[in-house]
Amino acid sequence: MSPRELATTGQSALLEQYRAVRRQTERLCAPLAVDDYQIQSGPETSPPKWHLAHTTWFFEAFLLRAFVADHRPFHPRYDYLFNSYYESVGAFHPKAARAVLSRPTVEDVYRYRSHVDDGVGELIETAAEGRWPEIAFRVTLGINHEQQHQELLLMDVKHNFAANPLRPAYHNPPPGAAARAGPLEWLDGPDGGFEVGHTGPAFAYDNESPRHATLLRSHRLASRPVTNGEYLEFVEAGGYDEPAHWLADGWHARQQRGWKAPLYWEKDGETWWQMTLGGLRRLVEVEPVCHVSFYEADAFARWAGKRLPTEDEWEVAARGRAVAGNFLESGLLRPVAGSGQWFGDVWEWTRSPYDPYPGFRPLAGSLGEYNGKFMCNQMVLRGGCCLTPQSHIRPTYRNFFYPHDRWPVTGIRLAADA
Amino acid sequence: MSPRELATTGQSALLEQYRAVRRQTERLCAPLAVDDYQIQSGPETSPPKWHLAHTTWFFEAFLLRAFVADHRPFHPRYDYLFNSYYESVGAFHPKAARAVLSRPTVEDVYRYRSHVDDGVGELIETAAEGRWPEIAFRVTLGINHEQQHQELLLMDVKHNFAANPLRPAYHNPPPGAAARAGPLEWLDGPDGGFEVGHTGPAFAYDNESPRHATLLRSHRLASRPVTNGEYLEFVEAGGYDEPAHWLADGWHARQQRGWKAPLYWEKDGETWWQMTLGGLRRLVEVEPVCHVSFYEADAFARWAGKRLPTEDEWEVAARGRAVAGNFLESGLLRPVAGSGQWFGDVWEWTRSPYDPYPGFRPLAGSLGEYNGKFMCNQMVLRGGCCLTPQSHIRPTYRNFFYPHDRWPVTGIRLAADA
Amino acid sequence: MSPRELATTGQSALLEQYRAVRRQTERLCAPLAVDDYQIQSGPETSPPKWHLAHTTWFFEAFLLRAFVADHRPFHPRYDYLFNSYYESVGAFHPKAARAVLSRPTVEDVYRYRSHVDDGVGELIETAAEGRWPEIAFRVTLGINHEQQHQELLLMDVKHNFAANPLRPAYHNPPPGAAARAGPLEWLDGPDGGFEVGHTGPAFAYDNESPRHATLLRSHRLASRPVTNGEYLEFVEAGGYDEPAHWLADGWHARQQRGWKAPLYWEKDGETWWQMTLGGLRRLVEVEPVCHVSFYEADAFARWAGKRLPTEDEWEVAARGRAVAGNFLESGLLRPVAGSGQWFGDVWEWTRSPYDPYPGFRPLAGSLGEYNGKFMCNQMVLRGGCCLTPQSHIRPTYRNFFYPHDRWPVTGIRLAADA
Amino acid sequence: MSPRELATTGQSALLEQYRAVRRQTERLCAPLAVDDYQIQSGPETSPPKWHLAHTTWFFEAFLLRAFVADHRPFHPRYDYLFNSYYESVGAFHPKAARAVLSRPTVEDVYRYRSHVDDGVGELIETAAEGRWPEIAFRVTLGINHEQQHQELLLMDVKHNFAANPLRPAYHNPPPGAAARAGPLEWLDGPDGGFEVGHTGPAFAYDNESPRHATLLRSHRLASRPVTNGEYLEFVEAGGYDEPAHWLADGWHARQQRGWKAPLYWEKDGETWWQMTLGGLRRLVEVEPVCHVSFYEADAFARWAGKRLPTEDEWEVAARGRAVAGNFLESGLLRPVAGSGQWFGDVWEWTRSPYDPYPGFRPLAGSLGEYNGKFMCNQMVLRGGCCLTPQSHIRPTYRNFFYPHDRWPVTGIRLAADA
Repeated sequence: MSPRELATTGQSALLEQYRAVRRQTERLCAPLAVDDYQIQSGPETSPPKWHLAHTTWFFEAFLLRAFVADHRPFHPRYDYLFNSYYESVGAFHPKAARAVLSRPTVEDVYRYRSHVDDGVGELIETAAEGRWPEIAFRVTLGINHEQQHQELLLMDVKHNFAANPLRPAYHNPPPGAAARAGPLEWLDGPDGGFEVGHTGPAFAYDNESPRHATLLRSHRLASRPVTNGEYLEFVEAGGYDEPAHWLADGWHARQQRGWKAPLYWEKDGETWWQMTLGGLRRLVEVEPVCHVSFYEADAFARWAGKRLPTEDEWEVAARGRAVAGNFLESGLLRPVAGSGQWFGDVWEWTRSPYDPYPGFRPLAGSLGEYNGKFMCNQMVLRGGCCLTPQSHIRPTYRNFFYPHDRWPVTGIRLAADA
Repeated sequence: MSPRELATTGQSALLEQYRAVRRQTERLCAPLAVDDYQIQSGPETSPPKWHLAHTTWFFEAFLLRAFVADHRPFHPRYDYLFNSYYESVGAFHPKAARAVLSRPTVEDVYRYRSHVDDGVGELIETAAEGRWPEIAFRVTLGINHEQQHQELLLMDVKHNFAANPLRPAYHNPPPGAAARAGPLEWLDGPDGGFEVGHTGPAFAYDNESPRHATLLRSHRLASRPVTNGEYLEFVEAGGYDEPAHWLADGWHARQQRGWKAPLYWEKDGETWWQMTLGGLRRLVEVEPVCHVSFYEADAFARWAGKRLPTEDEWEVAARGRAVAGNFLESGLLRPVAGSGQWFGDVWEWTRSPYDPYPGFRPLAGSLGEYNGKFMCNQMVLRGGCCLTPQSHIRPTYRNFFYPHDRWPVTGIRLAADA
Repeated sequence: MSPRELATTGQSALLEQYRAVRRQTERLCAPLAVDDYQIQSGPETSPPKWHLAHTTWFFEAFLLRAFVADHRPFHPRYDYLFNSYYESVGAFHPKAARAVLSRPTVEDVYRYRSHVDDGVGELIETAAEGRWPEIAFRVTLGINHEQQHQELLLMDVKHNFAANPLRPAYHNPPPGAAARAGPLEWLDGPDGGFEVGHTGPAFAYDNESPRHATLLRSHRLASRPVTNGEYLEFVEAGGYDEPAHWLADGWHARQQRGWKAPLYWEKDGETWWQMTLGGLRRLVEVEPVCHVSFYEADAFARWAGKRLPTEDEWEVAARGRAVAGNFLESGLLRPVAGSGQWFGDVWEWTRSPYDPYPGFRPLAGSLGEYNGKFMCNQMVLRGGCCLTPQSHIRPTYRNFFYPHDRWPVTGIRLAADA
Repeated sequence: MSPRELATTGQSALLEQYRAVRRQTERLCAPLAVDDYQIQSGPETSPPKWHLAHTTWFFEAFLLRAFVADHRPFHPRYDYLFNSYYESVGAFHPKAARAVLSRPTVEDVYRYRSHVDDGVGELIETAAEGRWPEIAFRVTLGINHEQQHQELLLMDVKHNFAANPLRPAYHNPPPGAAARAGPLEWLDGPDGGFEVGHTGPAFAYDNESPRHATLLRSHRLASRPVTNGEYLEFVEAGGYDEPAHWLADGWHARQQRGWKAPLYWEKDGETWWQMTLGGLRRLVEVEPVCHVSFYEADAFARWAGKRLPTEDEWEVAARGRAVAGNFLESGLLRPVAGSGQWFGDVWEWTRSPYDPYPGFRPLAGSLGEYNGKFMCNQMVLRGGCCLTPQSHIRPTYRNFFYPHDRWPVTGIRLAADA
């Protein structure tokens, strides 16, 4: 994306966006006790406090340091503490050890946020015209970055609370309307040549570009995601004990990690329960299955005589549809029964490895580390989930996780060759 | 120790002791932010909050549950959360995963303490005469248990803060009087038959009994612990690179863990620093060396042409001396230069494996798990340290750690065959 | 591939092929002492003896058991010992523990080979016409399977001998003609639509089908593989210490495994040596670099301002060329300097993840496990190497390894967007 | 032991001893196929070939190199390959990687043995009188060292063969006379002061000295080792599932390693089998239990209401008895039913940590690494076993293993306070 194109966003509008997203992050933390901010229940997760500080550091490092002439860092060691993975910025604290950082305290981190918010506000309001495109781009990138961390923060709180034998609830969810899953229908997908990927002046990540031609073969896509009830059939049919359904690496992961069901499912006697951000809850069969790894999604599909879609098939099918659905803003924070659900509810695993689009060029400088260096060993997911801010998602949006990852809100849409 | 003998302590005196120790624990936590209570920077340490709750659970499980007819647990899951290692009481949360317990919150845990304090107070004040000996014994055991955790809590806070790149200070230590280390003299130790171990009505742990005969050979003991300066000579002479000084397992540990100096030493250019509860501080050569493993203590002794004392040699030498010195109550929380220092300052590694005294009988029931089941693979230490409450220590007191442990305040007193 | 099409190979011709390949395997073992047959120097490798037995088991399990009415297994436990990874056939000995199998002895295994060879010979010679297509297909698959293990056997012997401080030589290589690397030129690659993948009656693995349309963008491909000398520049420029060149997972692998140069490179003073099947040998700058992981290949390409080719780009460029070059049959067993070298010398890493072609169908039954279940987390390599039998390779041939694997003879051909 | 005293052994007698022991080692290897010599089925074991070479290296390094003026090493790298753990001699190949050494071959190693045997023969026959005491001492030490490795070799072969699903037999054992276990009686042990440890001119290891005074309390010792049948009661009573019987570290080991019975026991339906050097064999209840760790021995004793003996109790009880029993020379290579059995059959775990006797001095120079550096974390065993050469054992002999070790032929003699 070229900064120049984004410059159409005006200063006051962008500042308002900035403030809204920053407020939203803090609002998401409102239910947390100070104690909850420190927890890191797995090596892939981060303590909530760290998310708060890191998103702030992102603006400080890539915006204030770059554009404020006499910028002095808020704290000389925060670069070390709150840099996530930008090797070209400098050394950083090991990810798996973020839970030892009781200092700075939560209070300190809120002070840090406030300080940087003041700086960003002033920078936006006083930006010289010639520098505005690049500033606007970086503010926008930082906003999108913070939205990603809003989702991560909720994923991580869920993981933390699920690791606690008390199974605490993060929130008291609003009552969802009684709902049924739509019938499972098969939508015909076209064959032939198509253009996929991002183009145009609106913001998108570098990994969505360049827009490029692709070829599709005739195929069909399921009209909605797989439900808990459908997945339960796989579980009860012994799907976790039959290697024939699984990729070799998937079977190995299942053996090593002792998987017997999706993450957060617990069986008590004959009853299945599911840990949610609202605490333990009986498994609802009509809701979309979530917290399955790529390996489980792939095994389920093979068991069902189907396959997962490619990311191109998905994009072509989804792009005519409104980006609407059960996102973060609904406040439900869990997938609900429905139809369609191309956007929101659950991230949908595709069978596409996350690799560079033909002609891909990462952003210049340290920001080039944002996406490009992860283009190996991960799989693409599409569509956003119930923890994703709605404005963050586009049809071209490419999320990516390792095939064994289960803590994102990941689900399954089936596909088949026509 | 027979409960009957201990019964001479009156109810009000014991209640006062109880309250003083409980208050002291909370006073030690005063400098902590809520954030600090959650941290567990290594698998052998525990979060401060866990110490607060576990010591409380100890009184609930072994006193209230046993002696209060209609006792109802404060919380149905605290047995699971705050039992440390009493297999006969029931299943417990894995030690290495204590850091995930953001709930109960610090506030909840203080409420738990207060609730149990009320119960214990009432039990002591209303105890029937016939049950008083056993009640008094268990209160006394719980008090001593809590004192051990006061030391552990400070050890663990130090470990947590040292793992934080900000190297925060727990306290602002009072100024110590300028001091010099006493000259290193060699005290003749007797040979012949001696009685060692605990006897009599005063409280002692089961592992100090029975009192029994031992034989000593002529030997000499150093008049004071090894200093930082003396240890630095070993470091600078390449002691960490010469396997000839080391036990085979010690050399393996040194290789695997990359030891180059005691724990908490850091070199910056030519200057050595030491992490303390008062933050980073220049290494003071006249102070006793501390945070060395048994392996390092043993290697140092071999390099110096000496050996470590046996626990019997130590006990015979120390028992005529006053149990006085630089303990927790000094508020310094680090060893200081001096002479003698048989008690306080640093725990002194002995060459004696921690094993049962001849005729040893553990306490009956679950409390028998307190000490006896650890009598393998560990080494005995004697004398207490600057983090130990003074009233907790006796000449017969046997502390024990694994030979690779370095996070206790462990030091070295040399010995030699005569 | 449909068995029916392959049936044009006559019985006596196929039997001769079978015997030639089986003899070749044994000829490759001629330089080994009995001692050498037992060694497994890494978890991804296998002892030579195991290769000899497993390839034999493959014919027994998938041919004799299926087509010989009264077939009795040679040994009741060989299914367990010599099944590699066919879950649907039954349980198998853990791969990483193959080195404990001193029994059966080498002598026993040669007896096993001879026994199965007799059975296969008889089956081929007496096959009923109606069953010949399927028999011929399975014999052909087994022959190709054994060819793969010929290469693996040499890769593993090299790994074993390189792990031995004596650095023994497997063979005394024939003198190669003095050679120079051809100049590095850039060949224009076409854009537009192409068909790739296998079709027709000749044998190919299931993973090469179906033939399907693909789109290429304009690009350029290097006229020959990267040489040791060119790679040495990367090493000496600090390429292994600069994370900016590396994928995130690649940098992690480099850190964890301590890579500083390709596998089998050793520096002695100022001189670089390279372990080969002919023993330690001075690094020859004009020869193609080999034993680099995908991560290193990718980092080198980024450092050079280039990229790796896709497998489709490679296939379109290579398919007009003769499948000729420095293969196993040359007896050199190392890559040599040259030009072109699309086939033989070194396997060429592509940037393409190993995934199913559109419409891919694995073989039916247990043989479906041959390729399909590995289609995740691995990268495609093309062209064969100096250890591959020449008749084993086709332009459509897809080899695959994990991106961290370095023990195959893997090299680099650069590509660039036009 | 002072070399001077040992010098009473004449040259020809010692040479005959030397040759007999060397022959015996090779005789023990006679049943092995070349394949069997390469196997290392666990990190604590060594391949048989390595034992053959290492024992030879011991004579070369400590005898020929020291006393033959113009000694040239047989091979320049054998110091690196066949030094076990003598840090002061130089760097050595990692123990866990001995299985990669296919070269030197078995044939090479026998040549090495023969070459060193010639050298040692000549040295003994031509030794100058003044050097004879030290030479005689080192030859004797090397002989004893080789005897230890005879036992280790058989232990390791057993471990290797037990790891092979074919469960091969090393030998066809001679028929043992039908036997019953003697009745379990309790022998009174004395209290008071005793001298223990080695003194006098006969050979003993440095760790058996100096002879020193000890105090015993009244106690009782079992008249024979615990049998399989007695141990089976513990197994069937759920002893492996009840933590109350176990040391904390023992329980942890049992959990981590999944112990459910002694090593080499296998249950098939209702029948227990035991892997032996004669292959799989039904468990014989009257034979002494073997292949239990210290943790299991200790847990069994606690379950039985008893304890293990101290090494001093054992020595005082055993030293009046003839050193006779079921040793290596019987050719049975497994413990047999009997009475007494203080020597031979099974090594008897004591409750004594392996530590230095008061006044202990290791041998001078590199040979000081033989025993002393292991005096931490291990437990003492007494009496020898069915794999130990009879002439190797004395009442003062101290063997030592880690408390989790199970691959030696270790058993249990119970003790109790009187």
